[in-house]
Amino acid sequence: MNLATIFLSETVGTAMLLLLGAGVVANNILPKNKGEGTGFLMVNFGWGLAVFSGVLVSYKSGGHLNPAVTLGVVASGAKEFVPGIPVDFMSISTYIGAQLIGAFIGAVLAWLAYKKQFDGDAPEGFKLGVFSTGPEIRDTVWNLMTEILATFVLVFVVLAAGHWGDSATNTPAGLGWLGALGVALLVVGIGASLGGPTGYAINPARDLGPRIAHAVLPIPNKGSSDWAYSWIPVVGPIIGGVVAGLLSHVLLP
Amino acid sequence: MNLATIFLSETVGTAMLLLLGAGVVANNILPKNKGEGTGFLMVNFGWGLAVFSGVLVSYKSGGHLNPAVTLGVVASGAKEFVPGIPVDFMSISTYIGAQLIGAFIGAVLAWLAYKKQFDGDAPEGFKLGVFSTGPEIRDTVWNLMTEILATFVLVFVVLAAGHWGDSATNTPAGLGWLGALGVALLVVGIGASLGGPTGYAINPARDLGPRIAHAVLPIPNKGSSDWAYSWIPVVGPIIGGVVAGLLSHVLLP
Amino acid sequence: MNLATIFLSETVGTAMLLLLGAGVVANNILPKNKGEGTGFLMVNFGWGLAVFSGVLVSYKSGGHLNPAVTLGVVASGAKEFVPGIPVDFMSISTYIGAQLIGAFIGAVLAWLAYKKQFDGDAPEGFKLGVFSTGPEIRDTVWNLMTEILATFVLVFVVLAAGHWGDSATNTPAGLGWLGALGVALLVVGIGASLGGPTGYAINPARDLGPRIAHAVLPIPNKGSSDWAYSWIPVVGPIIGGVVAGLLSHVLLP
Amino acid sequence: MNLATIFLSETVGTAMLLLLGAGVVANNILPKNKGEGTGFLMVNFGWGLAVFSGVLVSYKSGGHLNPAVTLGVVASGAKEFVPGIPVDFMSISTYIGAQLIGAFIGAVLAWLAYKKQFDGDAPEGFKLGVFSTGPEIRDTVWNLMTEILATFVLVFVVLAAGHWGDSATNTPAGLGWLGALGVALLVVGIGASLGGPTGYAINPARDLGPRIAHAVLPIPNKGSSDWAYSWIPVVGPIIGGVVAGLLSHVLLP
Repeated sequence: MNLATIFLSETVGTAMLLLLGAGVVANNILPKNKGEGTGFLMVNFGWGLAVFSGVLVSYKSGGHLNPAVTLGVVASGAKEFVPGIPVDFMSISTYIGAQLIGAFIGAVLAWLAYKKQFDGDAPEGFKLGVFSTGPEIRDTVWNLMTEILATFVLVFVVLAAGHWGDSATNTPAGLGWLGALGVALLVVGIGASLGGPTGYAINPARDLGPRIAHAVLPIPNKGSSDWAYSWIPVVGPIIGGVVAGLLSHVLLP
Repeated sequence: MNLATIFLSETVGTAMLLLLGAGVVANNILPKNKGEGTGFLMVNFGWGLAVFSGVLVSYKSGGHLNPAVTLGVVASGAKEFVPGIPVDFMSISTYIGAQLIGAFIGAVLAWLAYKKQFDGDAPEGFKLGVFSTGPEIRDTVWNLMTEILATFVLVFVVLAAGHWGDSATNTPAGLGWLGALGVALLVVGIGASLGGPTGYAINPARDLGPRIAHAVLPIPNKGSSDWAYSWIPVVGPIIGGVVAGLLSHVLLP
Repeated sequence: MNLATIFLSETVGTAMLLLLGAGVVANNILPKNKGEGTGFLMVNFGWGLAVFSGVLVSYKSGGHLNPAVTLGVVASGAKEFVPGIPVDFMSISTYIGAQLIGAFIGAVLAWLAYKKQFDGDAPEGFKLGVFSTGPEIRDTVWNLMTEILATFVLVFVVLAAGHWGDSATNTPAGLGWLGALGVALLVVGIGASLGGPTGYAINPARDLGPRIAHAVLPIPNKGSSDWAYSWIPVVGPIIGGVVAGLLSHVLLP
Repeated sequence: MNLATIFLSETVGTAMLLLLGAGVVANNILPKNKGEGTGFLMVNFGWGLAVFSGVLVSYKSGGHLNPAVTLGVVASGAKEFVPGIPVDFMSISTYIGAQLIGAFIGAVLAWLAYKKQFDGDAPEGFKLGVFSTGPEIRDTVWNLMTEILATFVLVFVVLAAGHWGDSATNTPAGLGWLGALGVALLVVGIGASLGGPTGYAINPARDLGPRIAHAVLPIPNKGSSDWAYSWIPVVGPIIGGVVAGLLSHVLLP
């Protein structure tokens, strides 16, 4: 195990996450799709199963796919990310860099899958909505609060789940690949429960990488990339993840 | 293991339950949310996955999160809640007290996540509906009946599930953290099947703690906390849970 | 293990099945319910999780809950239903008798849970629709065909699943209580895929027991119990289950 | 184990896949069904659980049910499909031939289950839509692109999942029959996320076999079988599956 393997694993996993995650939003909100207008529950399941698929393909690195998870693991006091990869500046940077690049790649792939729909007409803001999140009511303090709370739940429950695996036949994350199912269901739940106000970025890479893709891709009538809002789904999730890691010392003894 | 750990575990778990459980209702019924109007199936999945998350973080205490479960376990004749914690007045009080406090905290966190939506307009009764249950047709006898039956199902099936775990590599509750998945799916099913008439409190703490939060939080135009109904989702679930525990001696040999 | 235990287990399990199964239909179609009009997917999940709960509480008898399953197991050539219970006329009668009685009891409990909704107005035929199935297009041959095919799928896949359990740590049904999850998902799938024309009885007890309950319960304006159709969801599922058992010799070597 | 067993297993599994998969579309789009108009999420779950059921009944052959999976496994460098069946021209032909025949049979069975609905009126193109896929926006290059990407995800994640099974008590595919659950959820996710533009054939047999059935079955007003489009859901999935197999050498070390 070395950092190149980590980099590859996180890049591939986060690209898978965004291909499917951006895809389900495109299917739901862009005109001329089989799933147009199906609704928020399909979006919740789509993102949850995007996490499922992304984690399954990044088994080498533990399937973080999210800087808030990586930093939450750091804040929880872990010594190694996976056996042989100590927690240090280089490994943290490798995880986060790969996540950003993977998210960008995945967003580009989703655009290719929905190329004809992106070339057509869509209500203002919908094309950006496939790539990145935006709030229903714009408010710096409370949008941050929602992202902090939602990401706290993600990282805190993931850290808690690590306490369940104690059998010799189970992996640390639980029951082999079923751990990916657990995280997927958690993300379905977070979306349904805390996704209302801001669209649950809960992942800086998931929001920033695709926003850059939106900015550079040749999409007709794509509208603004809304950079004014772009820092909230980066800063909020980082705070939420780190707080979850720190509070795990007290609340998950 | 001691009662302070039990208290912390149940408080954290029930707070998680209410943050996500109240959250999904807010998302579904308060205006200006991504999930507004998605419907009852999203609410069912949201509450089920709220239980999933709550149980995952309260692994130390067995994840009751519900006085009806605690009292049902007592009525089933259990000698210990978890290894080292005998069933007695002190431990029962610790479980139930923590559940009430946790539910209050979780409701406050859900309010923070949806602060701007709570500050806006909503149809009468909807803001209370995020916190606590209310019946579609108000009737003391039959509302009690519905809550008794629905809680009976919850506690009876949970007690039955304990009979499946017999392998050396499985925990008593089944297959490690997958037991939390089983309870989550059970709650999705109870909501879909028996949630129609009263909104399936099936948990005194889940209803009373948030109702107190509704009464004390500074929410504009929040309306009545409907204290006239408040005892039904307390008494009904307790009866249902205790009856399930007692009948388990006969029906789950 | 003796036939009294089998009888109790199947009665309790099938009552649970109908309480939740009839309940989800009531929630979806009777006026003044939280879930009114949610749609067929909620009904599919409700019935699937009704099977989940029913199987979980009838662990002693293997959780058949359905004469078509019992007869399919017979046709597949099984020597024992569970260890100590040989397949013979007495045991078959015990299973099927308990299933019918349990289904009747469960339907009565569902009526109690939705008592006020049953006392109110509902479109013609909806109250019967909570208890028993009816076709969208009435046609003896093709309604039978649909029930035969749908029940064939149920019993055939259940018999196939028995071939997967080969590890020393797994039960014959697979992975402990997770087998109940597998059957639940199968029933969700059958409902979504083959429930359109007739409402997927796929279980003679599930349809006949509640139809008797509908006939005898004091429900205002309940309408006809539609006895003219009542034999189809009995005969069709029996044929489908037996054919699945017989073909399993050839198709599941 | 021999090729006749493989042939039987893949035929039965793919017939199950199409019976349930075509069935859920019929339920959703043909008039006079309980599930008419339920929407795309039910279709996604229906197809996912069709895969679940199909894999469960084809345990002898590994449950490919899809030439793109078979060819992806070949491209990944596997030496045997299952123990005793080497990868060679004969075994590949056996898999793919059985899949095509099974898909044809399953489509015929779905037609029998929905016979009265097929005999009735339906909007133009809907009857073909039960059998085979068609694009929302017709475009050779980009329809191919969508099918390539969606099938790549299917085969790539399935190949990745094989890397998780390392415990002595687990099968290579993971945790016994739970592997079928994993693939089912993956297909739910692919449908929700990448099914918008073309209806996610992601399987040449799933599209071509039923299209032949549509062409030969005596369905009133069935309309064109749209042979002009028919090669895209064959060629696209094959490319996607083979690319996934080839890239697995690099991306799944």
